[in-house]
Amino acid sequence: MTTTEAPPGSLPGTARAARPQERTAQRRRAILDAATRVFGERGYNNGSLVEIAEIVGITHAGVLHHFGSKEQLLLAVLAHRDEVDIERLATQQRPVGAEFLSHLVATAQANTERSGIVQTYAVLAAESVTGDHPAQEFFRGRFAVLRGDVADALGLTVGAPASDERVVAAASAIIAVMDGLQVQWLLDAETVAMPDTLRFVIDAIVESLRRSVAATP
Amino acid sequence: MTTTEAPPGSLPGTARAARPQERTAQRRRAILDAATRVFGERGYNNGSLVEIAEIVGITHAGVLHHFGSKEQLLLAVLAHRDEVDIERLATQQRPVGAEFLSHLVATAQANTERSGIVQTYAVLAAESVTGDHPAQEFFRGRFAVLRGDVADALGLTVGAPASDERVVAAASAIIAVMDGLQVQWLLDAETVAMPDTLRFVIDAIVESLRRSVAATP
Repeated sequence: MTTTEAPPGSLPGTARAARPQERTAQRRRAILDAATRVFGERGYNNGSLVEIAEIVGITHAGVLHHFGSKEQLLLAVLAHRDEVDIERLATQQRPVGAEFLSHLVATAQANTERSGIVQTYAVLAAESVTGDHPAQEFFRGRFAVLRGDVADALGLTVGAPASDERVVAAASAIIAVMDGLQVQWLLDAETVAMPDTLRFVIDAIVESLRRSVAATP
Repeated sequence: MTTTEAPPGSLPGTARAARPQERTAQRRRAILDAATRVFGERGYNNGSLVEIAEIVGITHAGVLHHFGSKEQLLLAVLAHRDEVDIERLATQQRPVGAEFLSHLVATAQANTERSGIVQTYAVLAAESVTGDHPAQEFFRGRFAVLRGDVADALGLTVGAPASDERVVAAASAIIAVMDGLQVQWLLDAETVAMPDTLRFVIDAIVESLRRSVAATP
């Protein structure tokens, strides 16, 4: 949600200087929202800056003024999505161990209410493997960080080092099942229950890892 | 592999009539191979018939002569991939139950040697969720059939009906992990071990289903 009204609580002394900055921030936010929608609907390659500009009600050159290039805009969309998720997390203590795994299930639950951003992510992640896609490094890095986070949580949960190769493989499997379920769910939301299925798989994997670690520490 | 030589063993009486048909079949096959490459490299929306035609050494109109439209060509590429997989299966008895699940692992192993077709499939499956994508029905149907096949195999393996909702959810999870691992592997083949990770997840899921079915049949 963006609004053209000034937010309440601006400091009196900074009001005059802040207003153009606020307008810039609101404009950037509106462009990011529009770009998220357009890239989600058409992919990056086929999404057009002209369409994004039309949604915001500015010119193509106006979009470039704020983001420099289509590639930069894509990377800003992806970074923006992560910021939103981090803001949601920041209101609570960052969960660890089994609670982090439950947080993944809660994210899958939240995703059932935001198919737009789920679609943007699913389409761009797959498209990023092609040729010299501008988001390729972003997604390669993102998957590496996610695998590390999930491996930390799994390791804590089953009592094994996060570097144990069974733990790392299990971490990449959990991320894979989240991503793969998103595509199936986007095509057939009535059949595919993302959060319940993810919970089942995480529990199955944790149980199996636990037995494996107990047998061969 | 396509070749311009006539295949051995044509019946003598049909040789003269068959040759143009063979040439047509070879030409179609060459277009399909080129389209698989181009759609895998650029996605469907951004892949161009002109580039496909150039690879084959014919004109844009020549491609349309054989396939009618870009959409029809896409659907032919996807159907062709399934035919190749079915041909591979046809040399053996179609596996059932636990052997079908092992066949999925063998497919993941085979996929490590054919990143081109893996990429084509991963990119097009995700892209198919967008707008009025011409492959949307294809992938919706394909996932439904796959879920049914995997549920049949899981049901047989753990002694539960394939229609049991736990079995159906587990089936969609196994397909999801295969698809999700492909994207991670395409971005980072050294870190992600597709067949081993899939084997681990299938075993964990079967074991968990078995216990669940034993506790509440």
